Amino acid sequence: MRFEEMWNGLAPVGRSAAGGGYFRQPFGSAERECHAWFLDECARRDLDVEHDGNGNAVAWWAPWEAEPGAVLTGSHLDSVLDGGAYDGPLGVVTALAAVDLLREQGFAPSRRIGIGAFVEEEGSRFGIACLGSRLAAGAITPEAARELRDRDGVALADAMSASGINPELGRSAILDGVGCFVELHVEQGRDLVHRDAAIGVASTIWPHGRFRFDFTGAANHAGTTRMEDRSDPMLTYAMTALAANKQARVAGQRATFGRVEVAPNGTNAIPSRVTAWLDARCESDEQLEALVDAIARQGSERAGRDGTRLTVTDESVSGAVTFDSDLAGRLSLVLGGVPVIPTMAGHDAGILSAAGIPTAMLFVRNPTGISHSPEEHAPMADCLAGVEALAATLRELAG
Amino acid sequence: MRFEEMWNGLAPVGRSAAGGGYFRQPFGSAERECHAWFLDECARRDLDVEHDGNGNAVAWWAPWEAEPGAVLTGSHLDSVLDGGAYDGPLGVVTALAAVDLLREQGFAPSRRIGIGAFVEEEGSRFGIACLGSRLAAGAITPEAARELRDRDGVALADAMSASGINPELGRSAILDGVGCFVELHVEQGRDLVHRDAAIGVASTIWPHGRFRFDFTGAANHAGTTRMEDRSDPMLTYAMTALAANKQARVAGQRATFGRVEVAPNGTNAIPSRVTAWLDARCESDEQLEALVDAIARQGSERAGRDGTRLTVTDESVSGAVTFDSDLAGRLSLVLGGVPVIPTMAGHDAGILSAAGIPTAMLFVRNPTGISHSPEEHAPMADCLAGVEALAATLRELAG
Repeated sequence: MRFEEMWNGLAPVGRSAAGGGYFRQPFGSAERECHAWFLDECARRDLDVEHDGNGNAVAWWAPWEAEPGAVLTGSHLDSVLDGGAYDGPLGVVTALAAVDLLREQGFAPSRRIGIGAFVEEEGSRFGIACLGSRLAAGAITPEAARELRDRDGVALADAMSASGINPELGRSAILDGVGCFVELHVEQGRDLVHRDAAIGVASTIWPHGRFRFDFTGAANHAGTTRMEDRSDPMLTYAMTALAANKQARVAGQRATFGRVEVAPNGTNAIPSRVTAWLDARCESDEQLEALVDAIARQGSERAGRDGTRLTVTDESVSGAVTFDSDLAGRLSLVLGGVPVIPTMAGHDAGILSAAGIPTAMLFVRNPTGISHSPEEHAPMADCLAGVEALAATLRELAG
Repeated sequence: MRFEEMWNGLAPVGRSAAGGGYFRQPFGSAERECHAWFLDECARRDLDVEHDGNGNAVAWWAPWEAEPGAVLTGSHLDSVLDGGAYDGPLGVVTALAAVDLLREQGFAPSRRIGIGAFVEEEGSRFGIACLGSRLAAGAITPEAARELRDRDGVALADAMSASGINPELGRSAILDGVGCFVELHVEQGRDLVHRDAAIGVASTIWPHGRFRFDFTGAANHAGTTRMEDRSDPMLTYAMTALAANKQARVAGQRATFGRVEVAPNGTNAIPSRVTAWLDARCESDEQLEALVDAIARQGSERAGRDGTRLTVTDESVSGAVTFDSDLAGRLSLVLGGVPVIPTMAGHDAGILSAAGIPTAMLFVRNPTGISHSPEEHAPMADCLAGVEALAATLRELAG
């Protein structure tokens, strides 16, 4: 089967031999190899690839005379640091396989069908999730994007240039004439396991955001400075991380400090600064704001006791997304009454939905629910069910 | 005055223009520039420099016929990350200035006087404090040292080779025939401020150690994983850092987590691993062991609740040092009854003392007590008093 062959072809790219995790950061060599692989697969299928100045690409299967309202599918090829194989690539590989299946079935679309590959969906390099789709949809200004730097201080435009892309950041033509978007994705949770379904359709995305917490204190000698004479920002951070966990746990929300940078980060020096990034998600926009406020308040109170300072910066906040409910209901029916479920994970689909494009998502069952980890997995049978489901969806929407 | 000229000459080397902190990591370009500066100053004074295969150097002022029992002084030239100008270099520059002063005074030593520059005193690159003096004194085996890697995975011997040193790790001849060692150092604390004295003599060094705490959990998606389904090692670390602080505070000891590394360190992924280094110091060896045990036990208990694991590794432990009390008393008298005070900071002097060399330390007053920070400072008048004191000490011991 063509899907499995493609999947196995892509599987080694950017995979750590030591831990099995994927390191496909945007404009880095592994992600570029995935992108080249995608272009190669599109060329084999005679799909016309349209590039934009943000690093995104869409491969078009266009009938001779197309009706207005293209049907866009696809996902992204980048991963988080030490991530899994499925988050992103599953949607792209499935889309290619679905086109193959439709062609085998002799299907002739009356609308254009596009397979998109959006860049930096994870925000693992430049800190803003869904950066490619945000730029394309005008959800972030080119000026703001031009200010972004990776951990080594490399600017977005310079990273793009270095990988051979001419950066022309901003709203792009690849979304012109798109009538709807359907993104297939591995489920990040076990809702479909509990419902005993291989495939589901998304209802909503929880609002979520990334908030940079800068804790500043005073560097000093770890041996000679009495505990009571310190201004140690590590303590303020530690208490804030515990408070965030507790706050989210009692309310059934999500709060995670997964990234921390310490300066000067020496064993025998009290830190002068700890920077930590909070990933927070709630059911409603109001709850999200209240959650982050509560964590910041508890951190600031502790900073007062520690003689340190805390400043909190919103790096990206995505409001609640309710996908087009007519479209979700229609797809659920077409797919034989599959469940319609919410997700707590952000996606390019959320950005395009917020930009006014009728949007749906299909989820493929994930037995453990684990994602953003080398352990992320979907069984081959469910992936193939995903190909069937996406093909049926495209047939319904582009027929 | 020659001291001030030398001090100003060395001051810009390895200093960050942004924050004013020093980055003089061993075998890196800034530290090598300091080392070349030292060799140049020695050459100007016709001192014979003896190198060992560990990267240490001693410049000898030797009389035609020397009595047995050389007098060694000096300190180190490396800094912590983002450190101050004084910790280390003050002892080397003062030693050179003291030799100048003794020569101006027409002093003819009857014993050899050596000015030592020991490498990697801070352990900022290879993790073991006083690495150069430990190797020279046989306090660490060459086999153990050969296993050391810096944060980029570069082996000690490779870093030495890359900077032009032929690595022949292990006990070295530079300490042969040394009858005593006197290290002058900026005070790291405010004991001399409280005693209104520019100069002091060391009595003891608190036992201290570096302990690597490896917290392991399970990476997963920060948005979709319910708080109660997580095995988040960041929480275990945070609680352990707070426990360490509390434990040390109530007992008047020191416990610091100044260095942390997170994997994969992505904003939207629960970490799979947090590694943090504990710097712990107590008045007695027994107290140090009890402190680290208590912190590790509290961390392990929390790990049980978090579904994570904690392993603790001793990276380097230095027992209590009591400097030769006859020597300390004699120097205090020679210097006009200056105070004899303990220190909580480790030094090459502690290694040489433990190796059986009669050893003393002179401290120069530090108005704020701050060290391991760009704010570290000693007034010029006190530095010059240090030159006078070290010259008087060398005259006493080498006369």
